[in-house]
Amino acid sequence: MLEEKSIKEFLEETASSSPVPGGGSIAALSAATALALVEMVANLTIGKKGYEEVQEEMKKIASRAEEGRKEFINDIDRDADAFDKVMAAFKLPKNTDEEKSSRKQAIQESFKNAALVPLEVAKKALNFMEMISTIVEKGNQNAVTDGAVAAMMARTAVLSALYNVKINLGSIKDEEFVNKLSKEVDEIESKVKELEKSILSKVNL
Amino acid sequence: MLEEKSIKEFLEETASSSPVPGGGSIAALSAATALALVEMVANLTIGKKGYEEVQEEMKKIASRAEEGRKEFINDIDRDADAFDKVMAAFKLPKNTDEEKSSRKQAIQESFKNAALVPLEVAKKALNFMEMISTIVEKGNQNAVTDGAVAAMMARTAVLSALYNVKINLGSIKDEEFVNKLSKEVDEIESKVKELEKSILSKVNL
Repeated sequence: MLEEKSIKEFLEETASSSPVPGGGSIAALSAATALALVEMVANLTIGKKGYEEVQEEMKKIASRAEEGRKEFINDIDRDADAFDKVMAAFKLPKNTDEEKSSRKQAIQESFKNAALVPLEVAKKALNFMEMISTIVEKGNQNAVTDGAVAAMMARTAVLSALYNVKINLGSIKDEEFVNKLSKEVDEIESKVKELEKSILSKVNL
Repeated sequence: MLEEKSIKEFLEETASSSPVPGGGSIAALSAATALALVEMVANLTIGKKGYEEVQEEMKKIASRAEEGRKEFINDIDRDADAFDKVMAAFKLPKNTDEEKSSRKQAIQESFKNAALVPLEVAKKALNFMEMISTIVEKGNQNAVTDGAVAAMMARTAVLSALYNVKINLGSIKDEEFVNKLSKEVDEIESKVKELEKSILSKVNL
C-alpha cells in the first residue's frame, strides 16, 4: 500500500525509472491533500467565536472531507494497479491465434480501466469544489489561504487525472467509448478551471 | 521530521485542527512531487532508443531534480517551523514595557521569516519550470502526461507558496519590506501562470 510509505520513500519511488506511481497516483494524492486542508479549515472553524452560524455546516464538511480524503488515498494505489494491469495484459502469451485475440481483448479492457479510474478521480474531485468554495467563504478567515491552496490542489488533481484519461484513450479502439469519455473530459476540464477561478476570486489578501 | 511520516499520517495531521502542517507545507510537498515526476520522466528517457541525442541532458535533469526534490522535502518542515516561531513569539511575556517592545519585535521578525520561507519556495519552484518544459518537449513521449502533471503541480506549488507569503505580509508593519515582497509576488505569479500555459500547449494528446 503506497499510503503506508513515508513521504520521502513515496517520492523516491515516484522518481525512479519504474512508471508507477506516476501522474495518475499523484493526481489522487493531490485530491487527498486538498481535502486534508478543507478538513483542517473546518476543524479550525468548529468552536470558534464569530462562526456560530456555520457550526453544523462545518461539522458536515469536516466529516465529508475525511471520507473523501480516505477514498482518494485508496485511489493512489488504484491508479498504480490500473497501470500494472495494462503491463500484465501486454505480457500475455501470443503464440496461437486464440491467444493473440484474447490478449488483444485483455489489453483493450485494461486500457479502458486505466482511463476509467482517473476519470472517476477527476469527477469526484470536481464534486468537492463546491465544498471548497464554502470553506473559503464561510470558514475561519485566518486559514483562508489554506482554502485557496485546497482549491488549487483540487484543480490540479482534476486536470492531472484528465491527462491520464486522455493518454489512455489514445490506445483504445472502441470509438463510442472514446467519444463518450472525450466529451466528459472536455466538460470537466472547463468546469474545474472556472470553479478554481471563482473560488480564488473570493480570497482577498 | 514530517518527511518520515507515512502519507496517511501526514494527511491526518494536516486535516487536524492544528494549523501545521498547512498550505505552506503542502506547497513544498507539491513542488517535491513535481520534481519526482520530472526525475521519473528523465529516468524513463535515459537509455531509451530514439532519445540518443538527449542522454546527457536527461542525466543532468535527473540529478538536478533529485537535489531539488530533497530541498523541497526539507521545506515541508521549514514552513511548519516558521509558523511555529510566529506562535512562539506571541507567547512571549508582556508584563513590562521592555518585554512588550521586544515581544513586538520578535513577532515582526517571525512574520518576516514566515513570508520569506514560502517566497523562497515559490522562487525555487518557478526556476524549475524551464526544466519541466524541456522534459515535456524532449523526454520520453510515453510519459508526456507525467511531465504535464509536473508542470501543474509546480504551478500550484508556486501559487500556493505565494498565498502564504501574502497572508503573512498582512501582519508586517515594515512598509518597505511589504512593498518589495508584494512586487516580487505579483511578478512570480504572472510568470508561473504563463509558463504553465506554455508547457501544457506543447502536450498533444
